[in-house]
Amino acid sequence: MPTELRSRMKVVEARSFSIEGLGIVERPVPQAGRGEILLKMKAATLNYRDLAVLTENYFPNLPLPYVPLSDGCGEVIQVGEGVERFRPGDRVLPLYTQGWHDGRPTPEQRAKRTLGAPLPGVLQEYMLVPAEDAVAAPAHLTDVEAATLPVAALTAWSVLLEGRVKPGDVIVVQGTGGVALFGVQFAKMMGATVIVLSSSDDKLQRVKALGADAGINYHSHPDWHRPVREMTQGRGADLIIETAGATLSESLSALAFGGFIGLVGFVAGYEATVPIRQLVGPLNRIQGMTTGSRTGFEAMNRAISSHRLHPVVDRIFDISDISEAFDFMKSGKHFGKIGIQF
Amino acid sequence: MPTELRSRMKVVEARSFSIEGLGIVERPVPQAGRGEILLKMKAATLNYRDLAVLTENYFPNLPLPYVPLSDGCGEVIQVGEGVERFRPGDRVLPLYTQGWHDGRPTPEQRAKRTLGAPLPGVLQEYMLVPAEDAVAAPAHLTDVEAATLPVAALTAWSVLLEGRVKPGDVIVVQGTGGVALFGVQFAKMMGATVIVLSSSDDKLQRVKALGADAGINYHSHPDWHRPVREMTQGRGADLIIETAGATLSESLSALAFGGFIGLVGFVAGYEATVPIRQLVGPLNRIQGMTTGSRTGFEAMNRAISSHRLHPVVDRIFDISDISEAFDFMKSGKHFGKIGIQF
Amino acid sequence: MPTELRSRMKVVEARSFSIEGLGIVERPVPQAGRGEILLKMKAATLNYRDLAVLTENYFPNLPLPYVPLSDGCGEVIQVGEGVERFRPGDRVLPLYTQGWHDGRPTPEQRAKRTLGAPLPGVLQEYMLVPAEDAVAAPAHLTDVEAATLPVAALTAWSVLLEGRVKPGDVIVVQGTGGVALFGVQFAKMMGATVIVLSSSDDKLQRVKALGADAGINYHSHPDWHRPVREMTQGRGADLIIETAGATLSESLSALAFGGFIGLVGFVAGYEATVPIRQLVGPLNRIQGMTTGSRTGFEAMNRAISSHRLHPVVDRIFDISDISEAFDFMKSGKHFGKIGIQF
Amino acid sequence: MPTELRSRMKVVEARSFSIEGLGIVERPVPQAGRGEILLKMKAATLNYRDLAVLTENYFPNLPLPYVPLSDGCGEVIQVGEGVERFRPGDRVLPLYTQGWHDGRPTPEQRAKRTLGAPLPGVLQEYMLVPAEDAVAAPAHLTDVEAATLPVAALTAWSVLLEGRVKPGDVIVVQGTGGVALFGVQFAKMMGATVIVLSSSDDKLQRVKALGADAGINYHSHPDWHRPVREMTQGRGADLIIETAGATLSESLSALAFGGFIGLVGFVAGYEATVPIRQLVGPLNRIQGMTTGSRTGFEAMNRAISSHRLHPVVDRIFDISDISEAFDFMKSGKHFGKIGIQF
Repeated sequence: MPTELRSRMKVVEARSFSIEGLGIVERPVPQAGRGEILLKMKAATLNYRDLAVLTENYFPNLPLPYVPLSDGCGEVIQVGEGVERFRPGDRVLPLYTQGWHDGRPTPEQRAKRTLGAPLPGVLQEYMLVPAEDAVAAPAHLTDVEAATLPVAALTAWSVLLEGRVKPGDVIVVQGTGGVALFGVQFAKMMGATVIVLSSSDDKLQRVKALGADAGINYHSHPDWHRPVREMTQGRGADLIIETAGATLSESLSALAFGGFIGLVGFVAGYEATVPIRQLVGPLNRIQGMTTGSRTGFEAMNRAISSHRLHPVVDRIFDISDISEAFDFMKSGKHFGKIGIQF
Repeated sequence: MPTELRSRMKVVEARSFSIEGLGIVERPVPQAGRGEILLKMKAATLNYRDLAVLTENYFPNLPLPYVPLSDGCGEVIQVGEGVERFRPGDRVLPLYTQGWHDGRPTPEQRAKRTLGAPLPGVLQEYMLVPAEDAVAAPAHLTDVEAATLPVAALTAWSVLLEGRVKPGDVIVVQGTGGVALFGVQFAKMMGATVIVLSSSDDKLQRVKALGADAGINYHSHPDWHRPVREMTQGRGADLIIETAGATLSESLSALAFGGFIGLVGFVAGYEATVPIRQLVGPLNRIQGMTTGSRTGFEAMNRAISSHRLHPVVDRIFDISDISEAFDFMKSGKHFGKIGIQF
Repeated sequence: MPTELRSRMKVVEARSFSIEGLGIVERPVPQAGRGEILLKMKAATLNYRDLAVLTENYFPNLPLPYVPLSDGCGEVIQVGEGVERFRPGDRVLPLYTQGWHDGRPTPEQRAKRTLGAPLPGVLQEYMLVPAEDAVAAPAHLTDVEAATLPVAALTAWSVLLEGRVKPGDVIVVQGTGGVALFGVQFAKMMGATVIVLSSSDDKLQRVKALGADAGINYHSHPDWHRPVREMTQGRGADLIIETAGATLSESLSALAFGGFIGLVGFVAGYEATVPIRQLVGPLNRIQGMTTGSRTGFEAMNRAISSHRLHPVVDRIFDISDISEAFDFMKSGKHFGKIGIQF
Repeated sequence: MPTELRSRMKVVEARSFSIEGLGIVERPVPQAGRGEILLKMKAATLNYRDLAVLTENYFPNLPLPYVPLSDGCGEVIQVGEGVERFRPGDRVLPLYTQGWHDGRPTPEQRAKRTLGAPLPGVLQEYMLVPAEDAVAAPAHLTDVEAATLPVAALTAWSVLLEGRVKPGDVIVVQGTGGVALFGVQFAKMMGATVIVLSSSDDKLQRVKALGADAGINYHSHPDWHRPVREMTQGRGADLIIETAGATLSESLSALAFGGFIGLVGFVAGYEATVPIRQLVGPLNRIQGMTTGSRTGFEAMNRAISSHRLHPVVDRIFDISDISEAFDFMKSGKHFGKIGIQF
C-alpha cells in the first residue's frame, strides 16, 4: 500500500561545513515526472565520505546549504509516466553514482552525479530519482540494513571482483568500518581467507565472530606486513582493501607477488609514499576504485539474497539525532555501519 | 623416508585399442637426470578421455603399446641434479600438460606434451618427470584423492575462473562425473548456486548431499533449459560446464544473457548444432577449455587445502584390476572419480 | 545555424513486411522534452539487419507499420530542458541501442531499445532522442559517411577490441559489406594483417586497394581455411569477424590456437554445425557480439578522427528511392555501405 | 654455416661494482647438454638496469665477479639432445627472464632467473641457454638491432598491451631511451597518438621524425601535465609509460579518467609521493611491470617482422670498449639503444 503523499516534507540541510551546521528545514514534496520515481525515505546510513564532505572540505566549492548522505532506502510511492522498472510499494535503493549503469562511470558522472554532494543527498523525507537510477532492495533486509548497500557494500564487492578474488586467496581488510566488514563478509562468501587490521583488540574479536580468519592490531604491529607474511608462509596477501590510503607503502610490503591493492579510502591521510621497486619488482597493481555500476549492484544483491547475508549495523539514530550520528562516526568507535531511521 | 629403489618395475601398457588390450609388463626403473624427479607412484584416477583414447581412436596415430592414464600421485624417491623444487618424501602430482606453467599452453604442449597420450601415462610403478612439471599434493588428501586433481579438478576450476563466477551466480553442471562434481564443490566454494543435470534421480540425490542446490533429470526433462529458466526467474544460468558437447544448443537455451559455456567434453557426441541467433542475440560465449597451468593448479590446491575439500571418489580398483576400472567407467554408473591403487 | 522547425514532417513507414510495403507518410514534428534533443535528419545508411527485419520476419511480432533503419546522422535543432551534452547545430549520431552507455547492454536494452525495430528507425525528417543516447559525429565526415558508424563501424570496432587484436595478428574478414570493410580499416589501424573473403575477384581487388593484405575467393576456395593456413605458416587466423554465421565450422578450421571468432551475422544462414573438438582442442572462443556502448562509440570516433578515416560508401540513394536502396542491398552487389540522403 | 667451436672463450666480468671493475677473462667454452643450445654471441645492448646493477647496488648481495648485460643475440652453433626448437645456424635471443613462457612469471623466476644478475649475462663469446628459453630473432634485423628486443622492446610492448591501447588513445612516453622509443614505435603501430617527454629539444625533434605526434621538454615544463591536458582537450593521457618512477604524482595529474600507468623504471629515483585522491577520484591504475613472457616475445616479433620495424640504435661499441659503452649510458646522451658488437 503506497504511503499517502503530503505536500510538505522535512529535509536535513547543512548550512555550514560542520556538524553544528546541520539542521532540519521544510520543503515542498516534489512530483514524479516522466521516468522518475518518488520515494518515501525509510532509512539512511553514514559513510566516512559524508563526514569528510561535512567537515574536511572534501568536496571543494560545494554550495551551501546542501543535503547530506549518499546511502538510503526508500519506498516507491509514485511512479512517473513511462516507468516500468518499479511499482508503488517497491523498496528501492538509489544509485550513489546516478547514471552509472554498467562498465565504468563517465568522468562527468563521477564528478557531478553522486548523491550527498554535489547532488542532494538522501536525508529527505521524500526523494525523486530516475527509475533507471535505483535498484530493488533485497527482501530479507531491514530498511537500515538495505541502506548500507549503495556505497559501502558495493565498494567492497567491486574491489574483490576487480581483483578477481578466488577461493584460497588471502585478503587483508583495513579497519572495521562499513567497507571493511562487507569486505570480510564477501571475501568469505568467495572462499577467501581474510585478515583484518584494527587498532582495537575488541573489534578484532568481533570481526572474527563475523568470519574473519585472523586479526592484527596495527597499533601493536605498525609493521603489520610481518604478521601477514608469517600467516601466509611468506607469500603475502593477494589483495588488500586499502581504506587508509596513507599506508600504501606498508600495504605494498604485505602484498603477494602480482598482488592487487584496491584503493578506496583516505582515512589515514591524503598522501602516500610509494617505493617504486616494491611495485615494479613483484609486478603489483594499485587500482583506484569507487562503488560500482547498477549491473554490479544487482549482481551483488543476488549474492546477498541467495546467501541471506545481513550487513553489520552498529547504532541506529533517529533522523533528528543526525548530529550525534556524525559525532559517533567521528569518534571512530563504530563497528560496521551507522544507521539513520526516518 | 624415501622408499627403496628397485631395478625393475611394473608398467601397464595397452597393446591394442581396447580394454582387452591392457596388460602389465616389466621395464627397467629409470634414474632421475638433471632437473628431474623420480616418483614411486601411489595412486591414479580415470578420466573419460582415458576411455576415449583406449577405445574410440580419440588420439589418432598413437603408437602402440602406450601407457595409459593422465592422473596420478607419486612420492618423490630421487631428485636429479639442480632440483630445488622438491625433496625425497614429497608427495607430488605430475602436470597433465607438461611444460604448461602459466597463462596458456603452447599448441605444441597441448598436442604433444600430455600424459597418457601421447606421452606415457602414470600407470607405472616408477615415473620420471621434470621437477618443474609437478606440484605438491595437498597434505590432507589420501593418495587416491590427490590423484583426482590434475585433470578433473583443474578443468572445473579453470572453467569457473575463466567464466569469472561470483557469489549469487547460477551454474549448471552436466552430469556427475569427475569434472562435474568438482564443478559443484568449487562453485559452492565460490558462493554460487548450482544446478546439476543427470539421468539418474539417485545421483541427483547424492549430488545435493554434496552441496548442489538443485538437480534436473535430463531424461525426464530433455528440454532442461525450461526448469533452469524457472529456477532462475527467467534469467537462465550464468555459466554452464559443458561436458556433453553435443548439447550446446540446449545449453544456449538455458544460458543467461551474456552467459558463458565452458566446453570441456564430448561425452554425448563430437558435433553440435548451434543456432547463430542464440549466440548473437544474448551476446553469449562458448569457450573451448582444458585443465590448467601449474600456477592455476597451485592456486587450486591452496583453495582445496584451506577449505579441506575432499574429492568424491567412487570405487577404488587395484592396479591389477585396471580393466574392471575401465569397464566401470564405460558403464557410466560411477559418481565422481574412479581410483586406482598401486 | 539551426534549421527552421516546421510542424509536419515526412516519415518512411513499412506497411507490410516487404520492400513493396515501404511508403512515405506525414506526421507531426515532435518537440524536445526534458533531456531530449530534436534532430533534423541528414542521412542514413542500410544494414543487412534492416533487410532481414523488412523481409525475413527477423523481428518476430513487430507491429506494423514501423519506421525502418538503425543508422542515421542528424543535426540538433532543438534541445530540451537540462540538456548540456549538445547544442543546436551539433551533428550527432543516435545510439543504435538506446541506453547502452558503457560495459554491456541489459537484456531489455538489447531486446527493446534498438532503433529500426522495435523502436522507430531513423527514416524520419525529424527525430527525437534523449541527449544521453547520441554521440557527436566526427567533424571530417560527410553526413552519409557519419551515418555509417552506429552499427557497422561500431560492430567491427567492438569485435577487434573484444578479441584484443594486436600488431602482427592475422584477421579474417568475411565479405565486403559494411562491418567487413570497417573490419579491414580498423584492423589495419591496429597493425594487424588482414585477409578478406569474397565471392567476387573484383571486390577482392578493391578491398586490397583499401589496405587488405590478401583476399580469398570463397567460391573458388570453399575450403578457404587452407589458403588461410598457408598464408600464416600454418598458424591460422587469430581472429575472424564472422558475418556469415553458418560457416562457423570452416572458421574454426581456419583459426589459430587460442583464436577468437566474433560472431556478428547470419548472412549465410541461422544455423551452424560445430565440431566440438575443434573448439576444445585449440581452446578457441566463439563470442556473440553486437555494436557497442556509447563509451566505445566515442573511443572509436576519436580513432576515426585522429586517423581521418573515411568509411567506404557505395551508392547513395535519395530517401524517396528507399525501395531501390533495399533492392540494391538485396542484390549483394554493394561494396561497403549503402547511403540514404534526406 | 655453424661457426667452428673453440675450447676457450672471452668473457666480460665485473670484479667490483663500478665501471672500472669491468674486465675480460678467459673461460672454457661449455657444451650443450640435454635440452640446451650453445650460442656464439654476436651482439648485445645496454639497459639502464645494467648500469644500476654495476654502479648502484641495484641487485643486493650479488656475488662478484659477475657477467653483465641482459640483452644479447647469438647464433646457435650446437644443440643438445632432444632439442627440436632450434637448429645450428638459427639466430636467437635468450629470454631475459629464463623460464617465463606465458602468463606471469613466478616470484622465483623474477628474482633468480634473470640474465645479467643474478644469472650470468650475455657478455660471453659463447653462451648456453635452454632451448625453451630463447626465441628466434626477426630475420630482417641486424644482430645489434635484434639484441635490443628482450628487455627494452618487450617491456614497451607489454605495457601497451596490458593497458589495452587502442587507436585514438593518447600515450605519454617518458624519455628517449630504449623502452621509450619502442613505446613510440609500437604505440604508433597500434594507431595511438604519442607524446614524448625529454629534457632535450634536439631529442624531441628526432623522436618526432620517428613518428611521435608531439614532444614536451620537461625542463621547460616541469608541470608537463598541463601541455598534455591542452593537447588532449582536457582529457589527459590514456596511458603513460613511466620510466622515471619518481614522477608518479605528475603522471597522475596528466592521466585521463580511468587511465593506466605502466611503471617500469626508476631513472629519476626510487620513491614517489602519491596523492591518494588522484588515484581514487579518476579510478586510475598503477601497474608495476617488467619485460614479458616468451609468448609475448614471439607475438611482438611477429609484429616487428610484419611491419619491418627497425629499432633505434645510437652508438655501437666493440666489446673491448664496454666501459665506454657504460660511460655513454651514464651520460644520458644516448637516443635509443646502445649496442655492443662481439
